[in-house]
Amino acid sequence: MLEHDTAWRQAAQDIVRAGQRMDQRGWVPATAGNISRRLADGRIAITRSGGHKGFLTEDDVIEIDPAGRPRADGQRASAETLLHTQIYAHDPRAGAVLHGHSVAATVLSMAATAPAIRLTDYEVLKVFEGQKTHATSIDVPIFDNDQDIARLATAVAPFLGKMPGGYVIRGHGVYVWGPDMPTALARLEGLEFLLACELERRKQ
Amino acid sequence: MLEHDTAWRQAAQDIVRAGQRMDQRGWVPATAGNISRRLADGRIAITRSGGHKGFLTEDDVIEIDPAGRPRADGQRASAETLLHTQIYAHDPRAGAVLHGHSVAATVLSMAATAPAIRLTDYEVLKVFEGQKTHATSIDVPIFDNDQDIARLATAVAPFLGKMPGGYVIRGHGVYVWGPDMPTALARLEGLEFLLACELERRKQ
Amino acid sequence: MLEHDTAWRQAAQDIVRAGQRMDQRGWVPATAGNISRRLADGRIAITRSGGHKGFLTEDDVIEIDPAGRPRADGQRASAETLLHTQIYAHDPRAGAVLHGHSVAATVLSMAATAPAIRLTDYEVLKVFEGQKTHATSIDVPIFDNDQDIARLATAVAPFLGKMPGGYVIRGHGVYVWGPDMPTALARLEGLEFLLACELERRKQ
Amino acid sequence: MLEHDTAWRQAAQDIVRAGQRMDQRGWVPATAGNISRRLADGRIAITRSGGHKGFLTEDDVIEIDPAGRPRADGQRASAETLLHTQIYAHDPRAGAVLHGHSVAATVLSMAATAPAIRLTDYEVLKVFEGQKTHATSIDVPIFDNDQDIARLATAVAPFLGKMPGGYVIRGHGVYVWGPDMPTALARLEGLEFLLACELERRKQ
Repeated sequence: MLEHDTAWRQAAQDIVRAGQRMDQRGWVPATAGNISRRLADGRIAITRSGGHKGFLTEDDVIEIDPAGRPRADGQRASAETLLHTQIYAHDPRAGAVLHGHSVAATVLSMAATAPAIRLTDYEVLKVFEGQKTHATSIDVPIFDNDQDIARLATAVAPFLGKMPGGYVIRGHGVYVWGPDMPTALARLEGLEFLLACELERRKQ
Repeated sequence: MLEHDTAWRQAAQDIVRAGQRMDQRGWVPATAGNISRRLADGRIAITRSGGHKGFLTEDDVIEIDPAGRPRADGQRASAETLLHTQIYAHDPRAGAVLHGHSVAATVLSMAATAPAIRLTDYEVLKVFEGQKTHATSIDVPIFDNDQDIARLATAVAPFLGKMPGGYVIRGHGVYVWGPDMPTALARLEGLEFLLACELERRKQ
Repeated sequence: MLEHDTAWRQAAQDIVRAGQRMDQRGWVPATAGNISRRLADGRIAITRSGGHKGFLTEDDVIEIDPAGRPRADGQRASAETLLHTQIYAHDPRAGAVLHGHSVAATVLSMAATAPAIRLTDYEVLKVFEGQKTHATSIDVPIFDNDQDIARLATAVAPFLGKMPGGYVIRGHGVYVWGPDMPTALARLEGLEFLLACELERRKQ
Repeated sequence: MLEHDTAWRQAAQDIVRAGQRMDQRGWVPATAGNISRRLADGRIAITRSGGHKGFLTEDDVIEIDPAGRPRADGQRASAETLLHTQIYAHDPRAGAVLHGHSVAATVLSMAATAPAIRLTDYEVLKVFEGQKTHATSIDVPIFDNDQDIARLATAVAPFLGKMPGGYVIRGHGVYVWGPDMPTALARLEGLEFLLACELERRKQ
């Protein structure tokens, strides 16, 4: 194993703690979810394939290049690595990407007939980039699930830059990101809170 | 940074721990919520703008004057500071104010057609000031959300003194208060418990 | 304060930890709930009036006589003490009594038109005294809430000995008991699990 | 008590921690559930009868032979031991078996009219053995509850080898297994997540 510098270890710790937080909320069941950070120097740290995201150690975090290939031989990155690198390539300010599976995201996306989940008039919308008021709507696009991640990334591409609330993969989970881990986590919590509200509202 | 005295640090600790408690219950998602304490000597301590209320430190608590202005240059109080100072101005006994965002408060207030949520016949009503029996009703007023907090405070003003169960801002969250932090927290838990009951009863 | 012997302190610790457990589950919101233990020598330890049951200390546990009167001057026992002493008087084997407030117990009892909640065919029924199979029914009686606890105790009295699953006070909460604290807690968890199932089944 | 070797103690610790995890999720209410591990040398460790599975110690784990009989005199294994040994006998790779009781499993199995719960198009299906895509269905068989465990095992037997998602006992709970404890726990979390989704989808 490589000796890691302070910046790397900080990024790895960000990922470990984000996994613990997501697990407390029930958003990374089984081996679901993956988490990444882009460092100031451009290196990308991401969770390795498999394993429970609530019980990560720093050794479960590996380095990938901008095309999603592990830097070290014999390492295997998360299957959905390409969805992370796509965001970093699109948005030079992106510093953290989170992917989780919640009951609300799964159920709402499977029930949806529209191509997006529309979130309207919620105060919490203000957590998303560029939002200054609750008196607005944000569309969270839903993409069909696909085991061919390159093909899924192609479907997502045209929407990058138009998704302040992130996106949902049907029957699968959400993707959100931000300039740093606290912001990405705040957006994840905001989105999941709003999806939980939407789920409840359908039962009233 | 100022050297803080014991009374201030106790108030700051009350706020830090209240934030942790609200986070455990899921009532401060993302950067939502804000928390304040009025000390015996009249100083008001409140959470600064932004940041997660589940991970506060004493440095995230700042002093404001009775009009809601930070005492120190360059500090920024929570956007909704005026709703806190309004309560302290109205009620000389008020020593703590809590504002949180729950799924139940959000969903019920968005579904409501009446101007208040009526809570009837619950034992837990006795947690609210002046209530001696379950055999009563309390109306929790709902105010329309407004990014203009001064205007929102004006809408709230006529109801101050008539809201033992606090109030709800539509699609946003609840405000409750009490003479000290334990009492304010008990009223918050009581209100959220009753809103959770109301949400369930609509599905039966 | 009296010096307490080992048996008393063990009983007080049982109560403190039961309160923490009930709080984790959300069954003692605000200042709700109360908890007692009868020691081998007949002394009864119970939570004092008020305060949050998730944050008890040994000093929050006081001694009462079999009629429910505090042994020490100036102490105030939980308002519902009489419902505890009634159980101890009826059942010489009872060593712990638990009273909590859950959303499920509150909502189901307020919706009920029958005088009891009937629980049928659940494996978990076996946690209740004398139950050897799931293929049975247990009726959990519902009593109307009453601020006159002596009158409420009179309503409960005829059913003592016929309530292996405890009982529910309408819009208020449950009472369960057992020979020791682990058994009482297991019955509480069993009852609350089954009430949660009943609540869900009504929405299917 | 026997002196235990390192391999045994590791297995016992796996069981203790699995119980804590299941308790956090609310899947072992009261004294429900049981947990076992088969060691590399063929010994089988299982929770003893009774007691809360969230508060196990190593002493609550006992050794049984492949027919489910305790190795030491005077010990009593979980009532459902035979359902564990049946899985170990069928699948030589099985190293851990988990049985829990959740609200979702209880309610869905009691509402079901079909002989299985069909799970379709979920990403999380990939946690089950041999599943490479979400675009598939898995049937989780439901067996009627029976206090005669030998008879219940006979009903389960024909399905062994055809249940990648484990199975459900009606009004009772789930059984899942895997080559080691982390895999068994991941499958349990995956199954419970999907049952929670199914429960929500019925309310939409």
